[in-house]
Amino acid sequence: MPIGVFDSGVGGLTVLKAMRDLLPNEDLVYLGDTARLPYGTKSPASINRYASQATLQLQQQGIKLLVVACNTASAVAIDALRKQMHPLPVIGVVEPGAMAAVESCPGGAHLVLATEATVQLGAYRNAIRERDAAAEVRELACELLVSLAEEGWTDGAIAEAIVRRYLEPLTEASYVADSIILGCTHFPLLRSAIEATVDAGTTIVDSASTTAAFARHMLDDDDLLNDQSAAGRLRLLATDGATRFARVGGRFLDENLVAADIELVDL
Amino acid sequence: MPIGVFDSGVGGLTVLKAMRDLLPNEDLVYLGDTARLPYGTKSPASINRYASQATLQLQQQGIKLLVVACNTASAVAIDALRKQMHPLPVIGVVEPGAMAAVESCPGGAHLVLATEATVQLGAYRNAIRERDAAAEVRELACELLVSLAEEGWTDGAIAEAIVRRYLEPLTEASYVADSIILGCTHFPLLRSAIEATVDAGTTIVDSASTTAAFARHMLDDDDLLNDQSAAGRLRLLATDGATRFARVGGRFLDENLVAADIELVDL
Repeated sequence: MPIGVFDSGVGGLTVLKAMRDLLPNEDLVYLGDTARLPYGTKSPASINRYASQATLQLQQQGIKLLVVACNTASAVAIDALRKQMHPLPVIGVVEPGAMAAVESCPGGAHLVLATEATVQLGAYRNAIRERDAAAEVRELACELLVSLAEEGWTDGAIAEAIVRRYLEPLTEASYVADSIILGCTHFPLLRSAIEATVDAGTTIVDSASTTAAFARHMLDDDDLLNDQSAAGRLRLLATDGATRFARVGGRFLDENLVAADIELVDL
Repeated sequence: MPIGVFDSGVGGLTVLKAMRDLLPNEDLVYLGDTARLPYGTKSPASINRYASQATLQLQQQGIKLLVVACNTASAVAIDALRKQMHPLPVIGVVEPGAMAAVESCPGGAHLVLATEATVQLGAYRNAIRERDAAAEVRELACELLVSLAEEGWTDGAIAEAIVRRYLEPLTEASYVADSIILGCTHFPLLRSAIEATVDAGTTIVDSASTTAAFARHMLDDDDLLNDQSAAGRLRLLATDGATRFARVGGRFLDENLVAADIELVDL
């Protein structure tokens, strides 16, 4: 049985890529709800409905695990999706990132870079403080980094200038984070630009790879891992715009995609 | 009777601002379909449905003229909206921009800066070539400029570096445009950054102000202008996210807005 991964668009493909690297024997089905992105500006009621419909589509593919590779849906809808998937497991992107940050520097100062929607929901803040009451958490909305990643301008002077400008108020206040959490699925693409602008001692927590590691761990615990001789297959579903999904998504997945690789579905 | 203006989000507020400046005696009702933005990535069938529902909402306000302040909806749905509004007039943003460009430099070389969706629809290309078969038209998708405008980073080194990078392939090919058309409602905010990076002889065609001028002309012709003693009132409607609409939209309208200024409607 495949693992289902869903996101509002192409961002979750960074999670899919990390899962492919770490779980090469698993079949993966990815669903990008591109017809209704972005989720971040929608109301909780809409996000719950969209996430439930996306999950139902993946349930019809017979998945053994659901990965919610979307920060907004993870923050808003994870409890409802756990009920919908019961008794099968559901993993969001927020909890693995928060856990990894707390483990890397207990009682530390954490800086969450995310979209405005994720910052407003306070999802990482809550998840970190639940696990470590001594932790200090700051959240910074960096909307432009999403467009930078989608445009493929992830390295070089422009990307670094934009990251530096977002961090400027903190730099001026002499704030130094122990960990920086990439709290948006787009941001792993900007990792090197972010690393170039922050203190060398800062740990970068990538919620894509932490989520993949968490998924592997959970499947292993439940004895649900595929045989190591299996060659994992990948299916990519989207609700609109196969051409753009292939072009932009190819960069996220680090693989050349064409529109014919994407199956359009209606939710 | 008021003039209705609609867009998928806040971008059309640059058109609204130009209309307010040019038509201070008119009542204006603006509808931003923020719950379903962006239109650019949606299918033509969805865009037609959304645009029709938005228009119906404005028709219920008793409007005398509809301005479609959204490039995607103008390109896809204008004919259907004209039928829906008949016998009342409908103005899109594409035609006034194209007309102004052709008038400013007949037989000239026009560069359209727009979103990917508008470029793919070829709306400005077709509208210019219909009016001037000798015109040469290039179209350039500049997605990041949308986020820059929404973030309010419209001046300075980062904005200019981004514009310069988009224009780089043309600069390297020694291409010089006679006119540059701001073919996205967000782009008038970036006018000074664009001017700073292009040849001083290039005419900048701002489709917001050309659309406002066209609306004034049309109302005047039809004898539908309000009395000059009237003080125009403004109503702002949105389908989701009043707080963000007020914060980002305030910059577009060049006026301080708070969430309570925005009426939420359901389409």
